[in-house]
Amino acid sequence: MKIRDILKKFVVLEGLDGSGTTTQLKMLKQKLDKEKIASFLTMEPTDGVIGRVIRDALRKKNVLDNKTLAFLFAADRNDHLYGKDGIIEQLKQGKWVICDRYFFSSIAYQSLSCKRNWVIEINDFPLPEYLFFIATSPQECQKRMENRAGKELFEDIKLQKDILDNYNYGINKYKKSGMKAFYINGEESPEIINEKIWEILSQCR
Amino acid sequence: MKIRDILKKFVVLEGLDGSGTTTQLKMLKQKLDKEKIASFLTMEPTDGVIGRVIRDALRKKNVLDNKTLAFLFAADRNDHLYGKDGIIEQLKQGKWVICDRYFFSSIAYQSLSCKRNWVIEINDFPLPEYLFFIATSPQECQKRMENRAGKELFEDIKLQKDILDNYNYGINKYKKSGMKAFYINGEESPEIINEKIWEILSQCR
Repeated sequence: MKIRDILKKFVVLEGLDGSGTTTQLKMLKQKLDKEKIASFLTMEPTDGVIGRVIRDALRKKNVLDNKTLAFLFAADRNDHLYGKDGIIEQLKQGKWVICDRYFFSSIAYQSLSCKRNWVIEINDFPLPEYLFFIATSPQECQKRMENRAGKELFEDIKLQKDILDNYNYGINKYKKSGMKAFYINGEESPEIINEKIWEILSQCR
Repeated sequence: MKIRDILKKFVVLEGLDGSGTTTQLKMLKQKLDKEKIASFLTMEPTDGVIGRVIRDALRKKNVLDNKTLAFLFAADRNDHLYGKDGIIEQLKQGKWVICDRYFFSSIAYQSLSCKRNWVIEINDFPLPEYLFFIATSPQECQKRMENRAGKELFEDIKLQKDILDNYNYGINKYKKSGMKAFYINGEESPEIINEKIWEILSQCR
Protein backbone atom coordinates (compact mmCIF):
# COMPACT_ATOMS: atom_id res chain seq x y z
CA MET A 1 0.00 0.00 0.00
CA LYS A 2 1.39 3.38 -0.99
CA ILE A 3 1.96 5.97 1.72
CA ARG A 4 -0.45 8.40 0.00
CA ASP A 5 -3.24 5.76 0.11
CA ILE A 6 -2.58 5.08 3.78
CA LEU A 7 -2.96 8.78 4.52
CA LYS A 8 -6.43 9.06 2.92
CA LYS A 9 -8.09 8.81 6.34
CA PHE A 10 -5.75 11.19 8.14
CA VAL A 11 -7.58 14.30 9.37
CA VAL A 12 -6.06 17.24 11.23
CA LEU A 13 -7.78 19.94 13.27
CA GLU A 14 -5.98 23.23 13.74
CA GLY A 15 -6.74 26.63 15.20
CA LEU A 16 -5.61 29.28 17.66
CA ASP A 17 -5.55 28.46 21.38
CA GLY A 18 -9.17 28.64 22.45
CA SER A 19 -10.53 28.14 18.93
CA GLY A 20 -12.29 24.93 19.89
CA THR A 21 -10.27 22.12 18.25
CA THR A 22 -10.37 19.89 21.34
CA THR A 23 -14.14 20.24 21.67
CA GLN A 24 -14.47 19.23 18.02
CA LEU A 25 -12.19 16.24 18.54
CA LYS A 26 -14.46 14.96 21.32
CA MET A 27 -17.63 15.56 19.31
CA LEU A 28 -16.18 13.76 16.29
CA LYS A 29 -15.33 10.82 18.51
CA GLN A 30 -18.95 10.53 19.59
CA LYS A 31 -20.18 10.67 15.99
CA LEU A 32 -17.64 8.11 14.74
CA ASP A 33 -18.43 5.73 17.61
CA LYS A 34 -22.18 6.10 16.99
CA GLU A 35 -21.66 5.22 13.34
CA LYS A 36 -19.38 2.33 14.34
CA ILE A 37 -16.53 3.73 12.26
CA ALA A 38 -13.13 2.58 13.52
CA SER A 39 -11.13 5.63 14.56
CA PHE A 40 -8.11 6.80 16.52
CA LEU A 41 -8.36 10.26 18.01
CA THR A 42 -5.19 11.85 19.19
CA MET A 43 -3.43 15.14 19.79
CA GLU A 44 -0.13 17.00 19.82
CA PRO A 45 1.83 17.48 21.94
CA THR A 46 1.23 13.80 22.78
CA ASP A 47 0.98 12.43 26.29
CA GLY A 48 4.19 10.43 25.74
CA VAL A 49 7.60 11.07 27.33
CA ILE A 50 8.49 13.86 24.89
CA GLY A 51 5.05 15.44 24.92
CA ARG A 52 5.24 15.75 28.68
CA VAL A 53 8.51 17.71 28.47
CA ILE A 54 6.84 20.05 25.96
CA ARG A 55 3.75 20.56 28.13
CA ASP A 56 5.92 21.37 31.15
CA ALA A 57 7.73 23.98 29.06
CA LEU A 58 4.48 25.52 27.81
CA ARG A 59 3.32 25.73 31.42
CA LYS A 60 6.69 27.22 32.33
CA LYS A 61 7.54 24.36 34.66
CA ASN A 62 10.85 24.16 32.84
CA VAL A 63 12.56 26.85 30.77
CA LEU A 64 13.40 25.90 27.18
CA ASP A 65 14.02 28.32 24.34
CA ASN A 66 11.93 28.27 21.19
CA LYS A 67 14.44 26.48 18.98
CA THR A 68 14.75 23.74 21.59
CA LEU A 69 10.95 23.53 21.67
CA ALA A 70 10.79 23.33 17.87
CA PHE A 71 13.14 20.32 17.91
CA LEU A 72 11.09 18.73 20.70
CA PHE A 73 7.83 19.15 18.78
CA ALA A 74 9.47 17.49 15.76
CA ALA A 75 10.74 14.63 17.95
CA ASP A 76 7.31 14.17 19.51
CA ARG A 77 5.66 14.26 16.08
CA ASN A 78 8.03 11.72 14.59
CA ASP A 79 7.32 9.39 17.49
CA HIS A 80 3.59 10.09 17.19
CA LEU A 81 3.65 9.11 13.52
CA TYR A 82 6.05 6.18 13.46
CA GLY A 83 6.16 4.90 17.04
CA LYS A 84 4.33 1.84 18.36
CA ASP A 85 0.52 2.26 18.04
CA GLY A 86 1.22 5.56 16.30
CA ILE A 87 -0.65 7.36 13.53
CA ILE A 88 0.81 5.36 10.62
CA GLU A 89 0.10 2.04 12.35
CA GLN A 90 -3.50 3.08 13.08
CA LEU A 91 -4.03 4.22 9.49
CA LYS A 92 -2.65 0.93 8.20
CA GLN A 93 -5.32 -0.83 10.26
CA GLY A 94 -7.89 1.10 8.24
CA LYS A 95 -8.89 3.50 10.98
CA TRP A 96 -9.73 7.15 10.56
CA VAL A 97 -7.13 9.17 12.47
CA ILE A 98 -8.21 12.59 13.73
CA CYS A 99 -5.39 14.62 15.21
CA ASP A 100 -5.83 17.77 17.28
CA ARG A 101 -2.89 19.91 16.08
CA TYR A 102 -0.07 18.78 13.77
CA PHE A 103 2.93 20.43 12.14
CA PHE A 104 0.85 23.46 11.08
CA SER A 105 0.92 24.39 14.77
CA SER A 106 4.72 24.29 14.68
CA ILE A 107 4.77 26.57 11.66
CA ALA A 108 2.32 28.91 13.38
CA TYR A 109 3.88 29.02 16.84
CA GLN A 110 7.60 28.24 16.51
CA SER A 111 7.98 30.65 13.59
CA LEU A 112 7.31 33.48 16.02
CA SER A 113 10.94 33.26 17.11
CA CYS A 114 12.60 30.76 14.74
CA LYS A 115 12.99 31.22 10.99
CA ARG A 116 9.79 29.98 9.35
CA ASN A 117 11.62 28.19 6.55
CA TRP A 118 13.73 26.34 9.08
CA VAL A 119 10.62 25.26 11.00
CA ILE A 120 9.12 24.04 7.71
CA GLU A 121 12.32 22.17 6.84
CA ILE A 122 12.55 20.19 10.06
CA ASN A 123 8.83 19.40 9.81
CA ASP A 124 9.08 17.35 6.64
CA PHE A 125 6.28 14.98 7.70
CA PRO A 126 3.45 13.33 5.71
CA LEU A 127 0.54 15.63 4.82
CA PRO A 128 -2.92 14.80 6.12
CA GLU A 129 -5.66 14.29 3.54
CA TYR A 130 -7.91 16.82 5.31
CA LEU A 131 -7.16 19.86 7.36
CA PHE A 132 -9.92 21.72 9.19
CA PHE A 133 -8.92 25.13 10.46
CA ILE A 134 -11.33 26.32 13.14
CA ALA A 135 -11.31 30.02 12.38
CA THR A 136 -12.10 31.80 15.63
CA SER A 137 -11.08 35.44 16.00
CA PRO A 138 -8.14 36.23 18.32
CA GLN A 139 -10.52 38.34 20.43
CA GLU A 140 -13.00 35.50 20.90
CA CYS A 141 -10.15 33.02 21.64
CA GLN A 142 -8.76 35.41 24.21
CA LYS A 143 -12.16 35.71 25.90
CA ARG A 144 -12.45 31.93 26.12
CA MET A 145 -8.90 31.49 27.41
CA GLU A 146 -9.48 33.93 30.25
CA ASN A 147 -12.06 31.55 31.64
CA ARG A 148 -9.57 28.68 31.69
CA ALA A 149 -7.55 27.68 34.74
CA GLY A 150 -3.86 27.32 33.71
CA LYS A 151 -2.77 29.72 31.00
CA GLU A 152 -0.09 28.41 28.62
CA LEU A 153 2.69 30.31 26.87
CA PHE A 154 1.10 31.40 23.64
CA GLU A 155 -2.06 33.00 24.92
CA ASP A 156 -1.12 36.64 24.61
CA ILE A 157 -3.52 38.36 22.21
CA LYS A 158 -0.71 40.48 20.70
CA LEU A 159 0.82 37.28 19.37
CA GLN A 160 -2.38 35.65 18.15
CA LYS A 161 -2.52 37.68 14.95
CA ASP A 162 1.06 36.77 14.01
CA ILE A 163 0.25 33.15 14.75
CA LEU A 164 -2.79 33.42 12.48
CA ASP A 165 -0.63 34.83 9.66
CA ASN A 166 1.77 31.92 10.02
CA TYR A 167 -1.12 29.46 9.97
CA ASN A 168 -2.46 30.96 6.76
CA TYR A 169 0.98 30.79 5.17
CA GLY A 170 1.45 27.14 6.10
CA ILE A 171 -2.01 26.04 5.04
CA ASN A 172 -1.77 27.85 1.70
CA LYS A 173 1.62 26.31 1.04
CA TYR A 174 0.38 22.74 1.50
CA LYS A 175 -2.96 23.25 -0.24
CA LYS A 176 -0.84 23.56 -3.35
CA SER A 177 0.47 20.03 -2.70
CA GLY A 178 -3.06 18.64 -2.80
CA MET A 179 -4.07 18.68 0.86
CA LYS A 180 -7.80 19.38 1.26
CA ALA A 181 -8.00 22.38 3.59
CA PHE A 182 -11.22 23.88 4.95
CA TYR A 183 -11.69 26.99 7.05
CA ILE A 184 -14.67 26.55 9.38
CA ASN A 185 -16.18 29.56 11.15
CA GLY A 186 -15.28 28.93 14.78
CA GLU A 187 -17.73 31.42 16.25
CA GLU A 188 -20.80 29.36 15.50
CA SER A 189 -22.03 26.82 18.05
CA PRO A 190 -19.89 23.69 18.54
CA GLU A 191 -22.80 21.63 17.16
CA ILE A 192 -22.97 23.59 13.90
CA ILE A 193 -19.17 23.46 13.49
CA ASN A 194 -19.24 19.72 14.08
CA GLU A 195 -22.05 19.26 11.58
CA LYS A 196 -20.04 21.08 8.92
CA ILE A 197 -16.90 19.01 9.48
CA TRP A 198 -18.96 15.82 9.55
CA GLU A 199 -20.69 16.66 6.31
CA ILE A 200 -17.41 17.20 4.49
CA LEU A 201 -15.94 13.98 5.84
CA SER A 202 -19.13 12.02 5.12
CA GLN A 203 -19.02 12.94 1.48
CA CYS A 204 -15.57 11.39 1.23
CA ARG A 205 -16.06 8.11 3.08
CA MET B 1 32.24 40.11 21.28
CA LYS B 2 31.98 38.05 18.11
CA ILE B 3 30.65 34.50 18.37
CA ARG B 4 33.91 33.12 16.90
CA ASP B 5 35.93 34.84 19.65
CA ILE B 6 33.61 33.50 22.34
CA LEU B 7 34.15 29.98 21.01
CA LYS B 8 37.96 30.14 21.27
CA LYS B 9 37.87 28.26 24.57
CA PHE B 10 35.33 25.63 23.50
CA VAL B 11 36.86 22.13 23.49
CA VAL B 12 35.11 18.89 22.53
CA LEU B 13 36.13 15.31 23.29
CA GLU B 14 34.81 12.58 21.02
CA GLY B 15 35.31 8.87 20.55
CA LEU B 16 33.61 5.51 20.36
CA ASP B 17 31.81 4.16 23.42
CA GLY B 18 34.55 2.93 25.71
CA SER B 19 37.23 5.09 24.07
CA GLY B 20 37.89 6.97 27.30
CA THR B 21 36.42 10.46 26.76
CA THR B 22 34.81 10.61 30.20
CA THR B 23 38.07 9.61 31.93
CA GLN B 24 39.83 12.40 30.04
CA LEU B 25 37.13 14.90 31.00
CA LYS B 26 37.71 14.12 34.70
CA MET B 27 41.50 14.30 34.37
CA LEU B 28 41.30 17.62 32.53
CA LYS B 29 39.14 18.98 35.35
CA GLN B 30 41.83 18.12 37.90
CA LYS B 31 44.52 19.80 35.82
CA LEU B 32 42.44 22.93 35.19
CA ASP B 33 41.55 23.24 38.88
CA LYS B 34 45.16 22.76 39.90
CA GLU B 35 46.21 25.54 37.54
CA LYS B 36 43.33 27.70 38.82
CA ILE B 37 41.94 28.07 35.30
CA ALA B 38 38.21 28.78 35.30
CA SER B 39 36.43 25.98 33.48
CA PHE B 40 33.05 24.37 32.89
CA LEU B 41 33.11 20.64 32.18
CA THR B 42 30.02 19.13 30.74
CA MET B 43 28.67 16.33 28.57
CA GLU B 44 26.02 15.23 26.10
CA PRO B 45 23.42 13.95 26.47
CA THR B 46 23.03 16.44 29.32
CA ASP B 47 21.49 15.62 32.66
CA GLY B 48 18.61 18.02 31.93
CA VAL B 49 14.99 17.09 31.19
CA ILE B 50 15.68 16.26 27.54
CA GLY B 51 18.95 14.45 28.22
CA ARG B 52 17.13 12.18 30.64
CA VAL B 53 14.62 11.13 27.96
CA ILE B 54 17.56 10.33 25.64
CA ARG B 55 19.39 8.29 28.30
CA ASP B 56 16.25 6.28 29.03
CA ALA B 57 15.96 5.51 25.31
CA LEU B 58 19.62 4.47 25.05
CA ARG B 59 19.06 2.16 28.02
CA LYS B 60 15.88 0.90 26.33
CA LYS B 61 13.68 2.11 29.15
CA ASN B 62 11.53 3.74 26.50
CA VAL B 63 11.33 2.92 22.79
CA LEU B 64 12.06 5.78 20.39
CA ASP B 65 13.13 5.41 16.78
CA ASN B 66 16.37 6.88 15.53
CA LYS B 67 14.88 9.90 13.81
CA THR B 68 13.05 10.79 17.02
CA LEU B 69 16.35 10.38 18.89
CA ALA B 70 18.16 12.60 16.38
CA PHE B 71 15.63 15.39 16.99
CA LEU B 72 15.97 14.90 20.75
CA PHE B 73 19.76 15.13 20.62
CA ALA B 74 19.42 18.37 18.64
CA ALA B 75 16.91 19.72 21.19
CA ASP B 76 19.17 18.76 24.10
CA ARG B 77 22.18 20.32 22.35
CA ASN B 78 20.39 23.57 21.61
CA ASP B 79 19.39 23.82 25.25
CA HIS B 80 22.92 22.88 26.33
CA LEU B 81 24.35 25.71 24.23
CA TYR B 82 21.83 28.50 24.71
CA GLY B 83 19.94 27.63 27.90
CA LYS B 84 20.54 29.18 31.31
CA ASP B 85 24.10 28.47 32.58
CA GLY B 86 24.74 26.79 29.24
CA ILE B 87 27.89 26.56 27.12
CA ILE B 88 27.61 30.00 25.50
CA GLU B 89 26.98 31.71 28.84
CA GLN B 90 29.99 29.93 30.41
CA LEU B 91 32.22 30.89 27.48
CA LYS B 92 31.08 34.50 27.74
CA GLN B 93 32.26 34.47 31.36
CA GLY B 94 35.72 33.63 30.03
CA LYS B 95 35.73 30.00 31.12
CA TRP B 96 37.19 27.09 29.20
CA VAL B 97 34.35 24.74 28.29
CA ILE B 98 35.25 21.09 27.80
CA CYS B 99 32.38 18.98 26.49
CA ASP B 100 32.30 15.18 26.44
CA ARG B 101 30.54 14.49 23.09
CA TYR B 102 28.93 17.06 20.82
CA PHE B 103 27.25 17.00 17.41
CA PHE B 104 29.99 14.80 15.95
CA SER B 105 28.43 12.03 18.03
CA SER B 106 25.09 12.68 16.32
CA ILE B 107 26.73 12.46 12.90
CA ALA B 108 28.47 9.25 13.96
CA TYR B 109 25.55 7.48 15.64
CA GLN B 110 22.30 8.83 14.17
CA SER B 111 23.62 8.48 10.61
CA LEU B 112 23.55 4.72 11.11
CA SER B 113 19.83 4.83 10.36
CA CYS B 114 19.04 8.40 9.30
CA LYS B 115 20.44 10.13 6.22
CA ARG B 116 23.82 11.60 7.17
CA ASN B 117 23.19 14.87 5.34
CA TRP B 118 19.92 15.30 7.20
CA VAL B 119 21.67 14.72 10.54
CA ILE B 120 24.28 17.32 9.54
CA GLU B 121 21.56 19.78 8.50
CA ILE B 122 19.64 19.69 11.76
CA ASN B 123 22.92 19.96 13.69
CA ASP B 124 23.81 23.41 12.45
CA PHE B 125 25.47 24.42 15.73
CA PRO B 126 28.62 26.46 16.49
CA LEU B 127 31.92 24.64 15.91
CA PRO B 128 34.28 24.14 18.83
CA GLU B 129 37.77 25.60 18.51
CA TYR B 130 39.35 22.22 19.39
CA LEU B 131 38.20 18.68 18.86
CA PHE B 132 40.09 15.77 20.38
CA PHE B 133 39.15 12.41 18.98
CA ILE B 134 40.28 9.64 21.32
CA ALA B 135 41.13 6.99 18.75
CA THR B 136 40.63 3.64 20.45
CA SER B 137 40.10 0.57 18.28
CA PRO B 138 36.59 -0.95 18.18
CA GLN B 139 38.07 -4.16 19.61
CA GLU B 140 39.62 -2.41 22.60
CA CYS B 141 36.42 -0.37 23.18
CA GLN B 142 34.40 -3.59 23.08
CA LYS B 143 36.69 -5.20 25.65
CA ARG B 144 36.30 -2.25 27.98
CA MET B 145 32.52 -2.08 27.56
CA GLU B 146 32.14 -5.73 28.51
CA ASN B 147 33.45 -4.85 31.95
CA ARG B 148 30.79 -2.17 32.41
CA ALA B 149 27.50 -2.72 34.20
CA GLY B 150 24.65 -1.37 32.03
CA LYS B 151 25.26 -1.73 28.30
CA GLU B 152 23.77 1.00 26.13
CA LEU B 153 22.38 0.79 22.62
CA PHE B 154 25.39 1.42 20.43
CA GLU B 155 27.82 -1.03 21.89
CA ASP B 156 27.66 -3.74 19.28
CA ILE B 157 31.08 -4.19 17.70
CA LYS B 158 29.59 -4.74 14.24
CA LEU B 159 28.36 -1.16 14.33
CA GLN B 160 31.50 0.41 15.79
CA LYS B 161 33.33 0.47 12.48
CA ASP B 162 30.45 2.22 10.70
CA ILE B 163 30.31 4.71 13.56
CA LEU B 164 34.04 5.30 13.16
CA ASP B 165 33.60 5.97 9.43
CA ASN B 166 30.88 8.52 10.18
CA TYR B 167 33.11 10.18 12.78
CA ASN B 168 35.94 10.50 10.28
CA TYR B 169 33.58 11.96 7.70
CA GLY B 170 32.22 14.56 10.14
CA ILE B 171 35.60 15.56 11.54
CA ASN B 172 37.13 15.93 8.08
CA LYS B 173 34.21 18.03 6.93
CA TYR B 174 34.58 20.55 9.76
CA LYS B 175 38.37 20.63 9.75
CA LYS B 176 37.96 22.37 6.42
CA SER B 177 36.00 25.11 8.22
CA GLY B 178 38.95 25.83 10.49
CA MET B 179 38.20 23.65 13.52
CA LYS B 180 41.41 22.34 15.07
CA ALA B 181 41.01 18.56 15.19
CA PHE B 182 43.45 16.12 16.79
CA TYR B 183 43.37 12.34 16.79
CA ILE B 184 44.91 11.04 20.02
CA ASN B 185 45.91 7.38 20.32
CA GLY B 186 43.40 6.03 22.82
CA GLU B 187 45.28 2.85 23.62
CA GLU B 188 48.03 4.54 25.59
CA SER B 189 47.61 5.08 29.31
CA PRO B 190 45.04 7.70 30.42
CA GLU B 191 47.92 9.75 31.86
CA ILE B 192 49.79 9.90 28.56
CA ILE B 193 46.61 10.75 26.64
CA ASN B 194 45.86 13.49 29.12
CA GLU B 195 49.39 14.85 28.84
CA LYS B 196 49.06 15.07 25.06
CA ILE B 197 45.74 16.91 25.20
CA TRP B 198 47.06 19.22 27.89
CA GLU B 199 50.16 20.06 25.90
CA ILE B 200 48.14 21.06 22.86
CA LEU B 201 45.77 23.19 24.91
CA SER B 202 48.62 24.77 26.89
CA GLN B 203 50.29 26.02 23.75
CA CYS B 204 47.13 27.91 22.86
CA ARG B 205 46.25 29.55 26.19
